[in-house]
Parts: sequence; C-alpha cells; structure tokens
Amino acid sequence: MIVEMRRGASQSEVDDVLERAKSLGLEVQLNLGTDKTVVAILGSNTGQLSTDIFAVLPGVESVTRIMKPYKIASREFKPKDTLVTVDDVIIGGKKVVVMAGPCAIESEEQLNEIANIVKQEGASILRGGAYKPRSSPFSFQGLKKTGLELLEHAGKQFGLPVITEVVDPGDVNLVSRYASILQVGSRNMQNFTLLTKLGKIRRPVVLKRGFSCTVTEWLTAADYLLAEGNDQVILCERGIRTFEDSARFSLDISSIPVIKRFSHLPVIVDPSHAAGHYSLVPALAKAAIAAGADGLLIEVHPSPKEAMVDGLQSLTPSDFSRLMKELKAVAKSSGRDF
Amino acid sequence: MIVEMRRGASQSEVDDVLERAKSLGLEVQLNLGTDKTVVAILGSNTGQLSTDIFAVLPGVESVTRIMKPYKIASREFKPKDTLVTVDDVIIGGKKVVVMAGPCAIESEEQLNEIANIVKQEGASILRGGAYKPRSSPFSFQGLKKTGLELLEHAGKQFGLPVITEVVDPGDVNLVSRYASILQVGSRNMQNFTLLTKLGKIRRPVVLKRGFSCTVTEWLTAADYLLAEGNDQVILCERGIRTFEDSARFSLDISSIPVIKRFSHLPVIVDPSHAAGHYSLVPALAKAAIAAGADGLLIEVHPSPKEAMVDGLQSLTPSDFSRLMKELKAVAKSSGRDF
Amino acid sequence: MIVEMRRGASQSEVDDVLERAKSLGLEVQLNLGTDKTVVAILGSNTGQLSTDIFAVLPGVESVTRIMKPYKIASREFKPKDTLVTVDDVIIGGKKVVVMAGPCAIESEEQLNEIANIVKQEGASILRGGAYKPRSSPFSFQGLKKTGLELLEHAGKQFGLPVITEVVDPGDVNLVSRYASILQVGSRNMQNFTLLTKLGKIRRPVVLKRGFSCTVTEWLTAADYLLAEGNDQVILCERGIRTFEDSARFSLDISSIPVIKRFSHLPVIVDPSHAAGHYSLVPALAKAAIAAGADGLLIEVHPSPKEAMVDGLQSLTPSDFSRLMKELKAVAKSSGRDF
Amino acid sequence: MIVEMRRGASQSEVDDVLERAKSLGLEVQLNLGTDKTVVAILGSNTGQLSTDIFAVLPGVESVTRIMKPYKIASREFKPKDTLVTVDDVIIGGKKVVVMAGPCAIESEEQLNEIANIVKQEGASILRGGAYKPRSSPFSFQGLKKTGLELLEHAGKQFGLPVITEVVDPGDVNLVSRYASILQVGSRNMQNFTLLTKLGKIRRPVVLKRGFSCTVTEWLTAADYLLAEGNDQVILCERGIRTFEDSARFSLDISSIPVIKRFSHLPVIVDPSHAAGHYSLVPALAKAAIAAGADGLLIEVHPSPKEAMVDGLQSLTPSDFSRLMKELKAVAKSSGRDF
Repeated sequence: MIVEMRRGASQSEVDDVLERAKSLGLEVQLNLGTDKTVVAILGSNTGQLSTDIFAVLPGVESVTRIMKPYKIASREFKPKDTLVTVDDVIIGGKKVVVMAGPCAIESEEQLNEIANIVKQEGASILRGGAYKPRSSPFSFQGLKKTGLELLEHAGKQFGLPVITEVVDPGDVNLVSRYASILQVGSRNMQNFTLLTKLGKIRRPVVLKRGFSCTVTEWLTAADYLLAEGNDQVILCERGIRTFEDSARFSLDISSIPVIKRFSHLPVIVDPSHAAGHYSLVPALAKAAIAAGADGLLIEVHPSPKEAMVDGLQSLTPSDFSRLMKELKAVAKSSGRDF
Repeated sequence: MIVEMRRGASQSEVDDVLERAKSLGLEVQLNLGTDKTVVAILGSNTGQLSTDIFAVLPGVESVTRIMKPYKIASREFKPKDTLVTVDDVIIGGKKVVVMAGPCAIESEEQLNEIANIVKQEGASILRGGAYKPRSSPFSFQGLKKTGLELLEHAGKQFGLPVITEVVDPGDVNLVSRYASILQVGSRNMQNFTLLTKLGKIRRPVVLKRGFSCTVTEWLTAADYLLAEGNDQVILCERGIRTFEDSARFSLDISSIPVIKRFSHLPVIVDPSHAAGHYSLVPALAKAAIAAGADGLLIEVHPSPKEAMVDGLQSLTPSDFSRLMKELKAVAKSSGRDF
Repeated sequence: MIVEMRRGASQSEVDDVLERAKSLGLEVQLNLGTDKTVVAILGSNTGQLSTDIFAVLPGVESVTRIMKPYKIASREFKPKDTLVTVDDVIIGGKKVVVMAGPCAIESEEQLNEIANIVKQEGASILRGGAYKPRSSPFSFQGLKKTGLELLEHAGKQFGLPVITEVVDPGDVNLVSRYASILQVGSRNMQNFTLLTKLGKIRRPVVLKRGFSCTVTEWLTAADYLLAEGNDQVILCERGIRTFEDSARFSLDISSIPVIKRFSHLPVIVDPSHAAGHYSLVPALAKAAIAAGADGLLIEVHPSPKEAMVDGLQSLTPSDFSRLMKELKAVAKSSGRDF
Repeated sequence: MIVEMRRGASQSEVDDVLERAKSLGLEVQLNLGTDKTVVAILGSNTGQLSTDIFAVLPGVESVTRIMKPYKIASREFKPKDTLVTVDDVIIGGKKVVVMAGPCAIESEEQLNEIANIVKQEGASILRGGAYKPRSSPFSFQGLKKTGLELLEHAGKQFGLPVITEVVDPGDVNLVSRYASILQVGSRNMQNFTLLTKLGKIRRPVVLKRGFSCTVTEWLTAADYLLAEGNDQVILCERGIRTFEDSARFSLDISSIPVIKRFSHLPVIVDPSHAAGHYSLVPALAKAAIAAGADGLLIEVHPSPKEAMVDGLQSLTPSDFSRLMKELKAVAKSSGRDF
C-alpha cells in the first residue's frame, strides 16, 4: 500500500501513518521525494486491508493499493490451474465443455426434448432453471422443487450432469440434493450470505460475474467460497452493463485472458445472457473459445417462440447443432479438444 | 408495445404477431407504413409483459416497450405522494429528514456517543449497521445480534427511531423486532427472496438503489415490496457505478426529479457511500436537498480514524454540526422545513 | 510512480528499472518487501511521464501513478482561485454567474427576444450557437457567420457579453472577433488541434467536459490551453454517459467539489444538456449551485416547440423566470451572491 | 416514431401532434388504447428527424424512435457488403486483412525494421502514426510531415499500402498525398469538420469508434463520410470505456455481429488499444476473427521497451510472428482466407 502525503504534511502527520502501520504489524519504508513524502507499507496481507485505514489520517492525500484484495483465488496463491470434476467431465482442462439447456424448466416434455438434443450434439452438461430471479414480481418465477425433480430425472435419463441456479441461502441444501453443479446468478455475486452457505457444501459452484462488478471484485467474491473450503469453483463471464444498447449486456471478452493471468480458476462464458438475442450468440460463443474460455453455458429451446423466459436469446435445436460444429473447428484451431 | 416488422416481412409473419397479441387478450392496431409494417399492441398490462414474447417471432425486427415495467410504484397507479411514518417522523412530507449514525456499530460507547450528537444536531433517525456485507471474507462483518440490541437501546435512550440493514432473508423477523426501519443495501436491490420477505412485514423499508440498476429497475424492485402489501417504502439513491473514479460512485442527482415525476414514493440520498470521502459529503448532501430529496442518510463517527468500516466517508461530529446548519439554509431556500 | 515487480523477478530485472529511472533523471527508492520488490520513483515531473515506460520492462507486474498527469491546472501549481473576467462580469468569484440563451441562433427576432428576457431576469451572459456539431449530417448545422453577427449585435444591444461554440480550428480567429467567450463542446474536449489554437488567443474559453472523460483527463486537456498561455479557462460540467437512460446524460454533481479541491479553475454547470428534458433542468440547476458551482449555462427559447435544435431541453421564458428566483434563494443560502 | 400521450391528454394536444406530423409530410396513425393515446408517425425519413420535434409538444409523455438515425451506412440502404480496395488488398471480402506497425513513427530505421517484419509475416498493410493526439501537451506529438515521408517511403520499399491518422481538418489534403488509407481516431469520431473534409477525398478512411459512442452513433458518423461521396469506409472497433479497469478499454466484441447485421461496411478490430497491455492482445485478436471481423490493426515494435508511445501494448516481432500463425488457424476454422 502506498500512502502519498499532502504537500506540506507535517512530521507528526507522517509519524501517525508510520505508527498505524507498525501497530498492524506492517513494515514501512519512507520515501522523501523532492515534492512529497510517500510511505510504502509492506506485508503479505496488505491486499485484505482497507485503504481507508490510512486515507482517513490527517495529512494523507491518497492511498493506493498494490496488492490485490483477493487471495485464495489468485494465481500467486496457487500457481497451478484448478480442475473441477463432475462425474467424468473435467472443467478447466484441455477440453472445452459445453453446458446447454433451457433458461427455465417448463415441463417434463420440454426438458427431455432439449436434453436429448444437448446429448446428441455432444454437450457435456444439462442446464435448466427451476428458481428464476425476475425483475418484476408479476413474471413467471420458475417451477421450483418440481423443476429440480424434472432436471435430476432428465440428467439421469440422458447421462448428463446437471446445473441449476440457487437464489435463496435457505435452499442450498435442497438444491444440492438434485444438482451436480450449483449456479450463483449475476445479481447474487455479492450475496455474501448465499456464498458463505455454498462454501460449506461439497458441490461445484458456477459463480457468475455481477453485471457491474470488476474482475477484482469477482475474484474477491470467489474467495468467500474458497475460504469456506469449497475449492470447486468455476467462474462465468456473462456480460457487463455499459452504455451500449445493441446487445443486452457487453460481453467483456478481455476478462478471459485477465482471469487466466491472475487466477487459477476455470472460466466459462454465457453468450446467451450477454447477447440477449439469438442472432448474436454464435459470434460471441466462438469468440469466447478463441479467447481461451474453458467452456460455454448456452440456452437452447425446442421452440424459442413458446419459451416462458428469455426465448429471444435461446437457440433452436438446428441453430445449436450448427454452432456446435463451428465451435469444434474454433476449439481445434486453438489447440483445444472439443 | 410497438412491434416493428422487418422490411419485406410476409403477411403470415404479421398475422402471427396479431394472433399472439389476441391470444394474450391484447388489442392491436396495424400501421402499414410506406417502408415497414408496424404493429401497436395495446392493453393496461403490456408493461409487465416481456418484449421477447413478440421479438422472438419470425419477421420481427424490434420491439419497443411504451408502458413502464413497474406498476404499483408508479405515479400513474397512485398520483398522491406516499408519506412514510415512523413514530412521529414523517418521510416524504414538507420536512427534510436526516438519518445519521455510524456505518458499523462497534460498541455501546461509540454508538451512544454518536446518538447523542445525532440527537443534539437535530437529526430525526439513528442509523447503524449490525450486519455488514463486505467485499472480502477477511473483513469485519458486523456485531450482528449484539449490534441490534445496542441500536435498539441507543434509540430508546435518545428518543430516536432506528434504521439498520438486513442482508439475509432468514433474519428479517429478527431484525424487525429491533429496528424501526429496515434497510435493503445496494447489492441486494434485486435479491428478490429478501424483498418478498420484507414485503410481508409491517415495517418501513429503505430500498437502496443497486449501483448499476436503472431507475426503472429500481421502481420495479419496489413493486416486489408493494405487491406483497408493504406500502411503507422509501427509495434511497446512493450513487451509480461509472467510469469516473474521483468519487467512489457517481451520485445520480437527476434520479431525484425523475423519481418525483414517475413515482409517488419518497426518495432520500446517501451522500456518504456515493462520495467515499468525507470532503465530498457536504456538497453532495446540499445538492440532494436542492434537487428535491426528502431526506439524507449520513455517516457520522466520533473518531473516523478509529472506525472499523468506511471511516473515510464518515463526518466528524464538528463537520456534521456545520453541515446540519448549511442543510437547514438550503432546505429553507427550497421551501422545505428542516 | 510505484513499480511493483513480479514475485520472483530477478535482480537484473530490478536493476533495469532502476537504471531507466536514473537515465530519466529520477530518484528511486527500493522497498524489499517480504513478498515482492516495489520501486518508488520520485521526481516533480513523474505525473507527465507515461507509466508504460516502466510497465513495459521485463519482470514488472504493474505501475501506479501517484502524481496527477495535469500540472498547470492543478491547485498545487497555483493555490489561489483563478478569476475570469469578461467586461464587468467575474467568473469564479463570490457571485454565481448565469449564461443563458438559445441552443441555436435561428433568426434576429428569436435571438433578440431571448436576449431581452435573459437581461431582464438578471443573467449576465448571452449564449447562442452559430456552429452546431450534429450527430447526423442531415440535421441543421447552424447559421454560421450570420449567426455570429446576430449574436454580437444582440450582445451589444442588450449590454451582455456573449458566448458561442467554435468547432473548427480554422474558425478560431473568426469566432474570437465576435464572441466574448469561446466554448469548446463536449465532443471536442480532446481535439488537441483546436485546444492548441485556443491557447494562443486572448479570449476566455469555456472547456466543456467530454461526456466520457474523467475529471483527470479534463484537467489535463485544460493544460493544453494553459500551456499555450491562455489562463482564462472556465470548466463546464455537462453530464457523463452512463447506463442510466432517464436523463440524456448523468450530471456528475461530485465533479464540482472534486474540481474545487484539485484545481484553481472556475467550474460552471450546463443542466440543459445533462437533462435533455426541460422538466429536469430546475432541479439540476439548483443542485449545481448548492454543490458549489460558479455559474450555469442554461438554454432558454421563446417557444421551445418551434426550436430548430434541442427544444426539449429549453426552458420557456416563464420557466426561466421562476428558476432564476429559486436559484437566487439557493445561492444566498450557500453564502453566494446572485 | 411512436408518440405516447400522457394519460388524460386533451383532444387538442393530440391534434397538435397530428398537425405537426402532417406539416412535415408524414403519415400518422392513431391508436386509442384503453389507457393512453399512442400516435404512430410513419415515413421513410423519420430516422433523421429529432424526436424532440414531438416530445416538446404539450401532453406528450415520450417519443420512441423506430427507424435508425443512420441511413447510407445501413444495410437496408445497401444490402450488399461494401468491399474497400487498396492497391491489390480487398477489405471486407473473404480474406482477413492484417494492418500492422508501430504506434508512432520514430525514425527511418525503426519503421523499416518493422515494415520488413510486417511484410515477412504476411500482413497486408503497414500502419504508423505521424500525428499523435496525446492527452497531455507535455507528451511526444509525433514526427508529423517527416513521419509521413518515412511512411510513404517504407511502404514503397516493402510493397505495402500504408495507413496513418489525420487529426486536423487542415491536414487532410497533405496526409492524403502520402497515405493509402486515412484513419480517424477514436477522439475524432464525432469531429464533424474532419469527417466532412474526408468525405470529399477519394481515399479509403478507417473510422475508429469513439470510445463512448454507441454503434448507432458510429454508423451515423459514417454517414458524414458517405453523404459527401466517399464510399470507401472501414469501421474499426477499438474498445469502449466502462467501469472495468483490468484492460485499458473493454473490447465490445458484440459490435462485430451487430455491425454485420445492420450495416454493409467492413469492420476491423484494434486489439492493441483496447487491451493496453501486450499480454492481452493475442486473445482479443483471435476472438475478433472468430466473431467475424474483416481484419485487424495491430501494434508491433522492434523493441517495445524503447517505444516512444504505447510500448506496453506493442507486440515484439517474435510475439507477432506467433500470433500470425494462430490467427491463420482461427481464420481458416471460420471459413476465412488469411
């Protein structure tokens, strides 16, 4: 942490900074610049300290953090890539993993029809929403427990591990009885109560990025899961909110190489929620693989125009089939298996 | 809802749109432009329908919503201003209401010292955090139930209603036993499980704006509380995330007149979290009142440099005292009581 | 500048950093942390150096700038407030200055009618656009030279200094023959050719903030004017682009106290372009004064529904008259003259 | 254009809207909803009309544009892809075109060394900056005319067309004597004076996206060039400004399929300026090709650590060589030539 004193700060103000650092067990080094005094504060846990601790002291102009605030999620903490294993599927390895299915589980017929397509086209994991967080209280909120039962059943029938979202900390145990992977939605990335509960179970968790959270905040949220002992964490980029309105969210494609550089966790991409429109999904999916993503989370529906939720961003079975072939080519061209 | 067909859309594609509208009980009107067919879809609930329902149909170029997605929170639904009453304090009326106190409750001494100041300076409500949602799992998370007890006690001692944040749906009943007003934090604005629980209690709720949510999404989230029957809702603007980094968040000052135009709910402003730095708080607080806010939520600490959380944005007692005098002048100049 | 070396960086990589700093005449101080080596680079011109100079060296993890990149615009360079004088109007002093008039000059009648109102209501400066930068080539582009002549004439007739925008570096001399103050529009804040030309004249310049530029970039752009010798610079906040769409731009109200803290230049606010809608203008104008702005730039039109440009954000004469009374009260309550 | 009247708008207010539409030669259709009157305004030029024309009328709640504001750049105007030809290089066809070179031209040796590498590795066009728009007046501003001469000479020597930026409308003719393609930088996307001058020459123009402009504004800016008769326009995505700070700008990858859907113009990507750091460039470059971009604009420097401008985002010759091989594989996998 670098503390820049105001021009003309008094000796006693500088001393207060030094004293506070020492009281926290930190080393300090003093730089007497020609213009300003700058204090470097050193120690292995300075990333987890609030900069306010020093910024609030009189005579301080600004405080700059050098160490990252996340710890267990960092590549410095664990240099080797984390592999997450679900049945015989490995996420984070050489093979690009596709998770596909409907946004919301609507009925047994709908789900089984999609599961069949997902299996046939070579995807590895079946997705389906049973609890749907919706902006308006007047919208369809999901089939809940019935949806979980249908999902588990479809997974078994077609030999696919299943992933579904959990929104209420009180439902974590229930959902983990049915799902192979639990998903934290974008609006819950900083729902720390939920994260703490999920950190205590032994199921892999997909942690979607908050649509207005930085990569740094995302990795710090992952620390909530990791600190509780759950090391099976998969990150999922799904677009960020910007001023641009031609897609529902702006897929932050550079987050992929950034995550690969600073973290050991696998990262997948959800092109469907980023795009908000089926016509943009293939380009985003291919770009994600080319940029180094470990997998994709794609919405498919047997008849998008009948879908109860997010039909506009769902691919039809034939579009999905075509995309899977294209993805295979891109994956191979990048030295990945598919 | 306005459905714009693609240039050259076929008659049967247009018919599909008309049919879907009719199947939902909606009226339609067809505009045969020189270039394109445009279908206007009319009905009192079109604001609550997803635009996807039509956008997903073949031959559709775009769908534009005319009606707002929120309903009960709208001024069209209830033209008269909502007044929220807590003991003898009215929020949303002629008087500007100041809620003040520490970010986090740290001890009985700290809280009582601040409560005394808050009371003396003429603020109406005591704030204090017992449950602290923190970005990092390694940070101080609040005194929890002990904090609630200290807060209730301080409120009684100084004759001040108290407000505190609730973060876990499972804690709603507990917190409502201690607090006069429950606060939903920015990261929980779209925590629909929490909102639904809060809609069922009979305590006023301060709903902070999600730092990346639009005013429209904010009012739609308020519908979750209102639809469950809790009509004692206060909105709180606390800054949005933008590219600018000289303040922690960018206070969206125009949200105040926008809310006043489109909603009947009272709106207050939290200049402390927006600013992130004590030196900016007075200017933002005064601007909020001048723009028409019904109140303020301000962080005060007897010794900000000793604060366990957010000391940098807390005012000292003497700064708070000076600000209260300035606020009084601004409020009076705008025809408000203080 | 703080250079953080990668964990495990070699001695020769650290030496390269030290050598480069010394070759630039900078002092260095080395911090051998327990985890990482951190190099502090000191000198009075480090704010104007690119961080890339060090970031590009092998073994460097990150480089953080401590000194601000702007220099002449900073309060450190000139602690005393700059006052800009135009005829007998002083901008940046105790009196809040209102500049008002039409977005575009349309005719002699229109301009004189507005000038009369502006004068009567106590505003100090007449604004009017002769050159209009428009998003589409098919929109009205302004009366150009004829507009300048009308503006000069109206100013003389009503005893008001006049302000108008210049968009082409080739027009700077022409426009400065007619206008008392030259305005740089938001889209030209980083048009460095234009700024350099304006730095060479001896007329005050209003530098509008680029709608996606940080306060730091804005002050650095002001350095272009100041470095050429023109010290009569007024900053103008006019809203930034964010995800929020209920106003045309989000007025960054906190930029006012930030500018006051870090710069000696006066700052005014344009509530009309920020709002984009007349109904929001009064709240933003009052908030700006309460936050400490030195003046306002307001659009007024005798008949907004006939305006050729931006009618929606223009106030009618009666709305302007009412607002001026309200502004006077807010200014007085903040200890300002009006 | 869809005009939504306020609930309870009077008949005469509705009539005013109808009358104004008719006075502009537009057709209208009236929808008397159960709640509100909605007026649809039809005509082939409604995209180029300001919505303010109607929004400013009494009784109007909101106005929504259906037609896009751009015209000549739209795929509706010209369904067939535009091909831009420079010597024997075609941009917008089956072959992915790489333009590469230094950010700034520094010397004959530097430029020729890079040109040699660019040629050897199979890139088609040499880039190099002679006029450098810099945030600070104290930074290196480019070799100007000398740079143009060096660039022309290097292009001839290695048989490569050359591209360079023009920043001053007064320099357009000069620069077009030396350069095969003229580039408009991000900060000048809405410098309409410059665009108008460039529309009159007969050289291809690369129009970089303003870093805070929407795709719609970008295509509307392209209309400035096209309307003047220059139909050799190439769009270049280079990242947008968002809250995320791990890359210099956030590459808006979805702009590529969006442009392909709504415009006939070719689109290339500049991964170097988006990334701001060499380590992110390869992932972004590959993603761009996978998403369907027609080409890339990449910064290469023989010794980035000696570069005078933007060294951090420049690839070394060996990194560039490796990337070209990877790009070839991705292009082939997407059915493109390279």
